[in-house]
Amino acid sequence: MKQQLHFVTIAALDLHATRRFYGALGWQPLLDVEGEIIFYQSAPGQILGFFLAEKFNADLDLPGDHSRVSGITLAHNVRSQDDVVALVDAMAAAGGTVLKPPQPGQFGGVFHAHVQDPNGAIWEIAHNPGWRVDADGTVRFSD
Amino acid sequence: MKQQLHFVTIAALDLHATRRFYGALGWQPLLDVEGEIIFYQSAPGQILGFFLAEKFNADLDLPGDHSRVSGITLAHNVRSQDDVVALVDAMAAAGGTVLKPPQPGQFGGVFHAHVQDPNGAIWEIAHNPGWRVDADGTVRFSD
Repeated sequence: MKQQLHFVTIAALDLHATRRFYGALGWQPLLDVEGEIIFYQSAPGQILGFFLAEKFNADLDLPGDHSRVSGITLAHNVRSQDDVVALVDAMAAAGGTVLKPPQPGQFGGVFHAHVQDPNGAIWEIAHNPGWRVDADGTVRFSD
Repeated sequence: MKQQLHFVTIAALDLHATRRFYGALGWQPLLDVEGEIIFYQSAPGQILGFFLAEKFNADLDLPGDHSRVSGITLAHNVRSQDDVVALVDAMAAAGGTVLKPPQPGQFGGVFHAHVQDPNGAIWEIAHNPGWRVDADGTVRFSD
């Protein structure tokens, strides 16, 4: 199995709110299927999709409701602590819910915040001085 | 906000089972911190992390347990329907739970299956003839 995640698909409570939130942050959809799914490119070779909850459940075809987002965080790293503060402010202005205001994290030496998107997905916005990405996309950690 | 997902972090019930499962599929950890977190590179500039559930909860610092994985699927695309079957077999042999055996999907013209990892995270293994990735990493859909 090639070590590549091609899609991350989130059950969406509200596609309109999703479109407004990510649009306000400057994200451009790759494909937006009204009433069904919105796809954003989220890394080379990867899509982040927001799939309307009832269709997400229909596709899983399991008993019960599996659309409440839990047990996962999405993270976006920025270059400084000030950039964390600025992005969290922008996400709040776009309709996000700040769960944890910018502060030093308990793990990994990061300065971070947690913001929920309109679907309940939690974004960690972080500055991590020990993390970098090489020109070829390889991620590196250093102490 | 740059349109890039840097980390996808899953609450892990069992790091040993996680290590065995992804190891059996040929994945190499970028960093494995015993009793805390395992990081795998999952796309250029991106890490998929499995963070022990109690620490995942501690990091969120919210009331209640937020570690049950729900409302999300991870997907990996392969080149043919036969490759879907072969990878699902390999995932089952590695300790995954097949929730949906390989079959035509309800959405998007895919042939797919759903397999749960040891943490309850659901992988969609798919062949999608209308999906491709350009050499620069740009994802394309065609009809």
